[in-house]
Amino acid sequence: MEQPIAAHPDRLLPADPGVRAIARSLYSAVEGLPIISPHGHVDAAVIEQNLPFPDPAALLVTPDHYVTRLIHANGVPLNQLGLGGSTMDPRQVWRNFCQAWPAFEGTASGYWIRQEFEHVFGVHEEPTAENSDRIFDAVSARLAEPGFRPRELFKEFNIEVLATTDDPLDSLESHAALAADPAFASRVLPTFRPDQYLNIAHPAWNENVERLLAAAGGGASGYAGYIGALEARRRHFVDNGAVSADHGVRTPATLKLDDADAARLFERARAGDATPEDREAFEAHMMYQMARMSVEDGLVMTIHPGSYRNHHRPTFEEFGADTGHDIPFAVTYTEAIRPLLEDFGTAKDFHLVLFTLDETVFSRELAPLAGFYPSVFIGAPWWFLDAPDAMLRFRSSVTETAGFSRSSGFIDDTRAFCSIPARHDTSRRIESAFLARLVAEHRISEERAHELIVDIVDSSPRRVFKL
Amino acid sequence: MEQPIAAHPDRLLPADPGVRAIARSLYSAVEGLPIISPHGHVDAAVIEQNLPFPDPAALLVTPDHYVTRLIHANGVPLNQLGLGGSTMDPRQVWRNFCQAWPAFEGTASGYWIRQEFEHVFGVHEEPTAENSDRIFDAVSARLAEPGFRPRELFKEFNIEVLATTDDPLDSLESHAALAADPAFASRVLPTFRPDQYLNIAHPAWNENVERLLAAAGGGASGYAGYIGALEARRRHFVDNGAVSADHGVRTPATLKLDDADAARLFERARAGDATPEDREAFEAHMMYQMARMSVEDGLVMTIHPGSYRNHHRPTFEEFGADTGHDIPFAVTYTEAIRPLLEDFGTAKDFHLVLFTLDETVFSRELAPLAGFYPSVFIGAPWWFLDAPDAMLRFRSSVTETAGFSRSSGFIDDTRAFCSIPARHDTSRRIESAFLARLVAEHRISEERAHELIVDIVDSSPRRVFKL
Amino acid sequence: MEQPIAAHPDRLLPADPGVRAIARSLYSAVEGLPIISPHGHVDAAVIEQNLPFPDPAALLVTPDHYVTRLIHANGVPLNQLGLGGSTMDPRQVWRNFCQAWPAFEGTASGYWIRQEFEHVFGVHEEPTAENSDRIFDAVSARLAEPGFRPRELFKEFNIEVLATTDDPLDSLESHAALAADPAFASRVLPTFRPDQYLNIAHPAWNENVERLLAAAGGGASGYAGYIGALEARRRHFVDNGAVSADHGVRTPATLKLDDADAARLFERARAGDATPEDREAFEAHMMYQMARMSVEDGLVMTIHPGSYRNHHRPTFEEFGADTGHDIPFAVTYTEAIRPLLEDFGTAKDFHLVLFTLDETVFSRELAPLAGFYPSVFIGAPWWFLDAPDAMLRFRSSVTETAGFSRSSGFIDDTRAFCSIPARHDTSRRIESAFLARLVAEHRISEERAHELIVDIVDSSPRRVFKL
Repeated sequence: MEQPIAAHPDRLLPADPGVRAIARSLYSAVEGLPIISPHGHVDAAVIEQNLPFPDPAALLVTPDHYVTRLIHANGVPLNQLGLGGSTMDPRQVWRNFCQAWPAFEGTASGYWIRQEFEHVFGVHEEPTAENSDRIFDAVSARLAEPGFRPRELFKEFNIEVLATTDDPLDSLESHAALAADPAFASRVLPTFRPDQYLNIAHPAWNENVERLLAAAGGGASGYAGYIGALEARRRHFVDNGAVSADHGVRTPATLKLDDADAARLFERARAGDATPEDREAFEAHMMYQMARMSVEDGLVMTIHPGSYRNHHRPTFEEFGADTGHDIPFAVTYTEAIRPLLEDFGTAKDFHLVLFTLDETVFSRELAPLAGFYPSVFIGAPWWFLDAPDAMLRFRSSVTETAGFSRSSGFIDDTRAFCSIPARHDTSRRIESAFLARLVAEHRISEERAHELIVDIVDSSPRRVFKL
Repeated sequence: MEQPIAAHPDRLLPADPGVRAIARSLYSAVEGLPIISPHGHVDAAVIEQNLPFPDPAALLVTPDHYVTRLIHANGVPLNQLGLGGSTMDPRQVWRNFCQAWPAFEGTASGYWIRQEFEHVFGVHEEPTAENSDRIFDAVSARLAEPGFRPRELFKEFNIEVLATTDDPLDSLESHAALAADPAFASRVLPTFRPDQYLNIAHPAWNENVERLLAAAGGGASGYAGYIGALEARRRHFVDNGAVSADHGVRTPATLKLDDADAARLFERARAGDATPEDREAFEAHMMYQMARMSVEDGLVMTIHPGSYRNHHRPTFEEFGADTGHDIPFAVTYTEAIRPLLEDFGTAKDFHLVLFTLDETVFSRELAPLAGFYPSVFIGAPWWFLDAPDAMLRFRSSVTETAGFSRSSGFIDDTRAFCSIPARHDTSRRIESAFLARLVAEHRISEERAHELIVDIVDSSPRRVFKL
Repeated sequence: MEQPIAAHPDRLLPADPGVRAIARSLYSAVEGLPIISPHGHVDAAVIEQNLPFPDPAALLVTPDHYVTRLIHANGVPLNQLGLGGSTMDPRQVWRNFCQAWPAFEGTASGYWIRQEFEHVFGVHEEPTAENSDRIFDAVSARLAEPGFRPRELFKEFNIEVLATTDDPLDSLESHAALAADPAFASRVLPTFRPDQYLNIAHPAWNENVERLLAAAGGGASGYAGYIGALEARRRHFVDNGAVSADHGVRTPATLKLDDADAARLFERARAGDATPEDREAFEAHMMYQMARMSVEDGLVMTIHPGSYRNHHRPTFEEFGADTGHDIPFAVTYTEAIRPLLEDFGTAKDFHLVLFTLDETVFSRELAPLAGFYPSVFIGAPWWFLDAPDAMLRFRSSVTETAGFSRSSGFIDDTRAFCSIPARHDTSRRIESAFLARLVAEHRISEERAHELIVDIVDSSPRRVFKL
């Protein structure tokens, strides 16, 4: 039998033998470096409590909407994948996944899962309808091993920093417990994610504001209390090790309103009278406010606009959010982000990481912005774009304008803990592949490429995220 | 003399020797498969009547607006290319083409014509002003051979299915005659193309509606009669073997109106009082209706928005439509298609193929949509995009998000019958080239690539177009 | 020590040995051809007066906003780079540049500077904080040599034609003096650049119009005088050898107003009463007028829309325009340019070169437009896009639709005189690399590629710019 491709030492490296040799050498310099993950969605409590992972389907299929969406596209309803409080036997969910496996060929999820199977679970065969139960049993057995608890894997994966994403009112007690635990040497950092407190259109906005004011308003009410409460909660995050605040917005619009105007919009929204224009203005203003707070408290600000959330309403109503139908649309940053940058673009130690799901923005806007503003960094390609070819297109698009010093470093953005090594390894291989081509074309020296690969993999995320 | 490049067995395959060897092996597995052409513009009557083709200029130059446009751009007026009822000697038209031949170097049309010359007409030299007459004579002689009648070529080209594009009121008698002819073993299928009956802005809309109601309204009038007549004509198409309905729209907007509102717009349009907003709403509503009908009658729905038709008015006025100046513009599907997908995105057996001339849509919107909705398939790159590099960009853009199972398979979309083998062969070579790179980079196994190339070339169009 | 990469004979050529060999052969055919530079920003007086260049910082750092922007992004304020009337010691500016040098790795500016160092200044080491003074001294010494005067370099660089960019009221006396000088064999041509006379939003518009009317109105006033004065100044440029008129506009909008409407807008603007809509309509109308004039006087018309000028207002206020924060945004040509093309798209000898900073426009709009209209040529990738990968993307995007005959040829667009050879050499290598791939993939013959590379490098700019 052929060697499994996931085991091939040269996987993802360029085909040309000369370029591959260079890429291999560059990759070998970063292969073993610790993982820095400055943005993701793992639950800190999972690490803190160190409970065993659930069954294979509940670990690898049901919660990963990049996986379920593609099985769904191939005709399997979501309730047969464990969603929506389904009581389906995990073995059957797993069978549905294994049967759909060929649909993942060539996809980012396919690469990661194959790596996980090979290197984390020791499964060396391709999932099929036939071997589904056997793989289920093998993975289950592995999950039951003591070495497969989250903290043990944390160590085995060589994760140095892992940031989570948290509600502004989260107590952060798991983070505090981990930080206080002398037996846990790594860092698990919270990230301030206030979308549902800033976006008036969110169904729970009013209620969230109530809770926010009650918890952190310090007795103040109205817009001033609201701003004060947000500042207070950010301080709580900073005190618990947070290094960044993350913002998922519809558009990258920013706007500076004076306090009176902002307060007027706030009250109108509280009374349920905000127009769509009010909502847009307020959200744009709050992005400006978040930047101001970042300048003051030092939290790195990350923005990711341009996704139509919950595109298929019937699925949203039955299965909730994050079920595979957030669909990107066209974005333009240049005019939208100007008000924010006019005031804070050169502010001392302000770091603003701009993400996009619209690749056209990379060369047209993000590289020129990051090539001038000391505050702006180009967010790594993520969501649908953290895949080999997309990452190569990204580097090709931004490097000639912005060089290597103005991008964020790899972001895994995942809730799938066991996929973290595969994701970072993929990125390291692709960055090596890109640099190797430049070396082979005599655009950069091999010596300098060796410095750059370390800078990209290790120094960039530390520098950009102040780690 | 050097071997003509069109005769080279490795043409269009990647340069790297290792990758090329894999590509060659993949290509050899599909080189001989029958041609499935689920969308195109050949006239069924040409096949049915089996008349000889006209002279070389009237066959290869005048009717192909991808050819005439580029000669026009290089300074030759369209009336010197046989358009507009020109009485120019075909030999002179042919001379103008041969003289302009260097302008086609590197273009998709250039590749196809060179293949046609080499493999269909046995012309092994490059057209020049000098050899123009000689090639004209050679091609003319070939066209006069009995083996060069449409039905004989149909067999020689190994075409299993060929879909035509037809007016809703077409009798489809040529299709019926071919289906009934025991001597004709292949399938020539009609395609329902109702643009000029749905788009109020079309100059003949009102007249078309009159004719539609008269022919198929069953005595009913008004909006209800109009809808009923469209349904009836679709049934006629289904009864004559149609598998799809094709829609060339300005934008991908869709909208669900209730019957009363739709009827009001319809009457306003009939009276000549529709505003531009009315027209847009009605066209968007009719896309929704077409989807509804497709869910009911099973016709695959194909949409291709984003072309500014007849961009140069003076040329349109003198030479008519389809004369080389339909110019693409930016398109965004995500919000526009949502109303349709909300109701029909998961409808059983509904197939919706979304095409684009705006490449940015591939990774940003079409791959994510097709990666969730079981109904949505990504239309192959066509028009200006069915060329080697564009096809490689397409695969690179969509595969990592949507895999290989969610795209339509190759669409030749041509009225140039003799170019069909060259077009499909080009696609097969490029698909092999793309897969070969993934194999060489250890992203997929060679064994799996062999299954995928067959799936892409043969199974995909059958599955997507219900053939 | 390794050979400096800038000295490598195969730099920028493809890595694959087979493709590289073909590329090397193609490149060798054009390596020594004279430089044709039909658009740039060198000052004609510098050539005419033949004064020595200033110190290294004032020559290579301070005036090049592609260089200063990236150092600024890495944390160095612009006043430490010599801008804003800074009195900083040039040695210190140079140190700041050398220290920031690693940030240029992989950028277009980095490639050019390295080439300049190696081939113009004879500096064979990479700039560092440590060797900064040594390089400063070496370059200074070189600049003091008699062979380093502008006219001597002009000859050494083998520049045959160099176009400058000039204010409509410029006397063009340096151009005239050079043309009259029998000792100066090359051509330095002015370019008519009337932006600040056409764009009502420009702060100096009214004053510019006053000066224009006074200088060239021939006694007429109002709109008619204004149009007449523009025509007169264009004649002055034509008389002094100009071949083109260049237009930097916000959007590519064009519009035909009748004289009365245009005059009304003009008067409203003169009175300071123009609305934003008035301004847009007037600018669009003036693009139409510029096309009309180009049809009449033969000046090639070049348009480059889509840049948000002076994005960071505080920097603009302190340091002025052209300081590194002109940021591109999304552009769409198809509908915008239609009014102009409707009337002039097929006008005899009219040449219209369309540039873009938004790469999406290349395959979607520019290639289709240039593939039909005899007047339209696709502008070379420039600004952020005149870099190796971007140039390869450009060729890949446009060639399959428009071939090689419909693009402008390389445009260096630079004010950095000493970088001109590096820029043209980069372009020649990349064009060779692109063609070599097509040869290796049997898409074009090697013989034809040898003709094409000469056509691209030499004949295209002559043909398109009527040189």
